[in-house]
Amino acid sequence: MAEMLYEGKAKKVFATDNPNEVVIYYKDDATAFNGLKKGTIIDKGIMNNTITTFFFDLLAKNGIPHHQLKKLSDREVLCKKVSIIPLEVIVRNIAAGSLAKKMGIEEGLPLKKPIIEFCYKNDELGDPMVNDDYAEAFGIATDAQVTEIKSMALKINDILKKFLADRKVRLIDFKLEFGVDADGRVILADEITPDTVRLWDAGTNEKLDKDRFRRDLGNVEEAYQEVIRRLTK
Amino acid sequence: MAEMLYEGKAKKVFATDNPNEVVIYYKDDATAFNGLKKGTIIDKGIMNNTITTFFFDLLAKNGIPHHQLKKLSDREVLCKKVSIIPLEVIVRNIAAGSLAKKMGIEEGLPLKKPIIEFCYKNDELGDPMVNDDYAEAFGIATDAQVTEIKSMALKINDILKKFLADRKVRLIDFKLEFGVDADGRVILADEITPDTVRLWDAGTNEKLDKDRFRRDLGNVEEAYQEVIRRLTK
Repeated sequence: MAEMLYEGKAKKVFATDNPNEVVIYYKDDATAFNGLKKGTIIDKGIMNNTITTFFFDLLAKNGIPHHQLKKLSDREVLCKKVSIIPLEVIVRNIAAGSLAKKMGIEEGLPLKKPIIEFCYKNDELGDPMVNDDYAEAFGIATDAQVTEIKSMALKINDILKKFLADRKVRLIDFKLEFGVDADGRVILADEITPDTVRLWDAGTNEKLDKDRFRRDLGNVEEAYQEVIRRLTK
Repeated sequence: MAEMLYEGKAKKVFATDNPNEVVIYYKDDATAFNGLKKGTIIDKGIMNNTITTFFFDLLAKNGIPHHQLKKLSDREVLCKKVSIIPLEVIVRNIAAGSLAKKMGIEEGLPLKKPIIEFCYKNDELGDPMVNDDYAEAFGIATDAQVTEIKSMALKINDILKKFLADRKVRLIDFKLEFGVDADGRVILADEITPDTVRLWDAGTNEKLDKDRFRRDLGNVEEAYQEVIRRLTK
């Protein structure tokens, strides 16, 4: 049995014989509101492994380096071991969720330009919002890493937005994480799934993401399956 | 009697015969925690008018344009009428207050570099933290204005930090506001006083600012008077 290095809310990470590689295992556990709401989305692990692999392959073809090496099974993917930069990198095209609440506006308002924002990954502190200066001031990331991360995040937004629009899906907002690999390079890590991306049907604005779980809207599994159908058709 | 254009927590603004000029009147009212705590600091209006005028004169000599034209009386100052950019521009050298709480660290930790952060001025929303992208995305300020504001804020920090260090005072953090004048130029506005700046004695770290009121530390008036003594000696 391989050694478990880390267990997060939605994934486990296991060691391999190669010190520079890990296996990521996707769970069905679903949480929201910083862990206050807990539940299960049936086969989410299988669906999210499929969806992340699909998006990461798409991004790699468009020049974005990432940590995935090879999908091993339904729920497992072999990845480069990276040192995660403890920033949640949020990219927003349309106001929704916490942004809409914070700014006192309706969900669905298009922004005049995409917003990139950072939260400091720290469950105990509730992942507080920070900014570029905080990263360097607290030793979270260097200025050069921040510049690289923002440039990649905008490029990823352009690639995904266009790809999804062709499949009649609106890319509302999403969360990325980045890591530093053995060569010191900043690369995309973690996942891109309906857990971490808000996706609305372009015709009806029906939600195809974890907001169905957060807000008890029903048809959670069906929404994740629909995302796979749109991506692969 | 001149028409009152606006009443804030600490100041009133009156019209003058010149449409491009206003009179700002400093009150003794003190508030904290977004207005939840209310009180009076005796003669604060007189002291803060003196202190702001002193700092603004110092900054003007060092190339920072601001809205003040002429001190009229103990509590009144004639100012250019500006359109306030609704951003609280916070500059931090040492962790204190909300920053220390948010990041889970002790007050007094020096930052590896100064932090500039923006809050969206909106009492109803609780002045939420935003970032550069929000400013343009929500039409709060243009990218050019944001660049100008950050550049001025850092310059102001350098000028004040050096000046205060010579007077054995540590500049912990402070809040600035900027406005657009009749010529479309971004200039420093509002006030720079112990209401809006954290100042600690360089020897003892004794607080010489509104934290004495916020935290019921006593000797509030004496602290403001001490600031005047240090500035003018």
